[in-house]
Amino acid sequence: MVVGLSPPGNILCVNGVQLATVIAGIKNGQKPDLVLITFEPDTVCAGVFTRNAFCAAPVTVAKKHLAQTSPRALLINSGNANAGTGDQGLSDAEQSCVLVASAINCTENEVLPFSTGVIGEDLPMDKIESGIKQLPARLEGDGWLGAATAIMTTDTVAKAYSRTLQIDNAEVIITGIAKGSGMIRPDMATMLAFIATDAAVNREWLQHCLESAVDVSFNSITVDGDTSTNDACILAATGASGSRTLDGSCDSSIEFQQVVNEVFIQLAQAIVRDGEGATKFVAVHVESAVTLEEAKKVAYTVAQSPLVKTALYASDPNWGRILAAVGRAGLDNLDINKISIYLGDVCIVSKGGRDPAYAEALGQAVMSQQEISIRVTLNRGNERTTVWTTDLSYDYVKINAEYRT
Amino acid sequence: MVVGLSPPGNILCVNGVQLATVIAGIKNGQKPDLVLITFEPDTVCAGVFTRNAFCAAPVTVAKKHLAQTSPRALLINSGNANAGTGDQGLSDAEQSCVLVASAINCTENEVLPFSTGVIGEDLPMDKIESGIKQLPARLEGDGWLGAATAIMTTDTVAKAYSRTLQIDNAEVIITGIAKGSGMIRPDMATMLAFIATDAAVNREWLQHCLESAVDVSFNSITVDGDTSTNDACILAATGASGSRTLDGSCDSSIEFQQVVNEVFIQLAQAIVRDGEGATKFVAVHVESAVTLEEAKKVAYTVAQSPLVKTALYASDPNWGRILAAVGRAGLDNLDINKISIYLGDVCIVSKGGRDPAYAEALGQAVMSQQEISIRVTLNRGNERTTVWTTDLSYDYVKINAEYRT
Repeated sequence: MVVGLSPPGNILCVNGVQLATVIAGIKNGQKPDLVLITFEPDTVCAGVFTRNAFCAAPVTVAKKHLAQTSPRALLINSGNANAGTGDQGLSDAEQSCVLVASAINCTENEVLPFSTGVIGEDLPMDKIESGIKQLPARLEGDGWLGAATAIMTTDTVAKAYSRTLQIDNAEVIITGIAKGSGMIRPDMATMLAFIATDAAVNREWLQHCLESAVDVSFNSITVDGDTSTNDACILAATGASGSRTLDGSCDSSIEFQQVVNEVFIQLAQAIVRDGEGATKFVAVHVESAVTLEEAKKVAYTVAQSPLVKTALYASDPNWGRILAAVGRAGLDNLDINKISIYLGDVCIVSKGGRDPAYAEALGQAVMSQQEISIRVTLNRGNERTTVWTTDLSYDYVKINAEYRT
Repeated sequence: MVVGLSPPGNILCVNGVQLATVIAGIKNGQKPDLVLITFEPDTVCAGVFTRNAFCAAPVTVAKKHLAQTSPRALLINSGNANAGTGDQGLSDAEQSCVLVASAINCTENEVLPFSTGVIGEDLPMDKIESGIKQLPARLEGDGWLGAATAIMTTDTVAKAYSRTLQIDNAEVIITGIAKGSGMIRPDMATMLAFIATDAAVNREWLQHCLESAVDVSFNSITVDGDTSTNDACILAATGASGSRTLDGSCDSSIEFQQVVNEVFIQLAQAIVRDGEGATKFVAVHVESAVTLEEAKKVAYTVAQSPLVKTALYASDPNWGRILAAVGRAGLDNLDINKISIYLGDVCIVSKGGRDPAYAEALGQAVMSQQEISIRVTLNRGNERTTVWTTDLSYDYVKINAEYRT
């Protein structure tokens, strides 16, 4: 099921961006599974990619091409991750770019390839090739929702989000799409997310905006703790709105960053809300840590604990499991007597033990909700973080036990 | 279910050790839940305890008493962990020791308390007290199996194991018991395990033997990655066999260490075989690592990946998930082209991609077995390790969603 997430509405076109989808037959069944996104010349692109050492062939090729020149097109397939495919995989990813370049008349290194799906199977290049031939004729500015749907794997709802902001006299649009929904514990990137704006932004500032936004969004979620081989996130700025060029030096740059963050957070939360088997949407806040790193360590330890997650699924206020997870997070010289833990607004732990005012009924009331916050106050510094996660349900096991059948 | 584990047979008494159990009513239902183990005077004891910062009250008290003097008795209850219980918990743990001391005529600090069960509820001291009164009359040398049964929580099979060895003219016995079976990812200790021998061993060497054995046994298993608040492991040597005192300087000391290791490994593996919801018993071997630490990092990342574990449950040779887990283990400068991965004897990955000789049917044949080995060869050093784990099944979720109901 999905927790508090509706199909996307009111998705705005971004001037300078066109999108197309086709049923290439990579997925079994009659669903769109190949996407082309094109950018006008002079579009500036920033990207971040998975740090998984076994990164997929398209990630390797996309990183290389992005370092060489400004991309004119993104090619994305679902149904096959082209990961763990060795030299054949690299050659297939390169060949996909050659085919797109020929179809839309650009150079091979102006195309970035992306794949998501089953690991370890070769890309069906005949299907990719015939799909690519059909894509250019289908390009349209209004294709965001179709693209969001075509990149889905175990996602049950398409993820897309738009925001606008005013820069001087220009109205600027930011629209993005993303997909989850398993193997989700992004490391410096996300699963697949593609966000575009018609703001004009210089490349260094765009990369900065992207990395800052990823830190507070895709790098702050976990479904199952498994970092994917294929994570990638692209932010493209076409400049077609006619806004002045943002470079970080003006108030508009700061506002732009803020709205970009909001778009990224919406998309990242959408991935969690539609996480495999999710029946709860959970925010884990860790406060007053010495460093951001230790705050993240505690937050992820709680968010990834199978025992905390099964208690969330059961709506069981078994707060001892939260306490045990905080205790095993590996913080040096942790003084448990300073720690407070809250379920929603209910204080469950203070001074290392059950809060005197705590009663099971109070915890039960919070745990019965679909959206739950867990807040851990370490009382030893000034850093804080939030990580969003889901529960662990029968359906998570079912989905992943049956994934390839 | 249980994977390849029968109820214990042929458990040998250890001279100088007596055990008793009683139905104190701490667990709901009519099952024994309170255990007393006593040692003859001059018994030497070594212990290791959880590193979870939120360690339970009995762990704090046991550590303190063990540092002060040689224990004469262990008191263990199941059904309540006495963790997250603050000052009341400490006071209850101390009071339990006072009651035992009075019942068997020793001093309070000669008693070590242990608890396992639900976190965050106060110990029912009235039940503990009336239970303790009944225990001394029930002490017997042949009580190991009863004790193994009484310390169980979600375990489905009691865990006990005995071995003998010859030291000069004396036959020495080593017998141990342990319990699992959730919140299992011991850190420098285990859940609860109590092992005794009638060998004579000096205290420093005994502590060394214990720590060495724990490293290759309880510290090499994981069911769900959750380190407990109550982990504790005690190794007691009564000296009643009349063997000469082992201090690490003779061949017999080395032999003794070897047999102790084997007892510990049997008990640790028994915990995994009876892990919550387990349908598979899996050994993850990591070879040719630069350091033991990085070997463990890779092994635990694979062993704790929910995606690997659900694939194991489904008997699905989805080796891409193993590869992805190795890739996200956080090793610096990992050259994936040097890595090989084997499922049983089948090479699935070589040079960073699917091995040319691999075929799905070969992987399927391995994954369909109940006992599976995964072997990762990093080809960059000389260290190796093995971690034992289970799959992730519907029943794991069921057991932990319904734990307190």
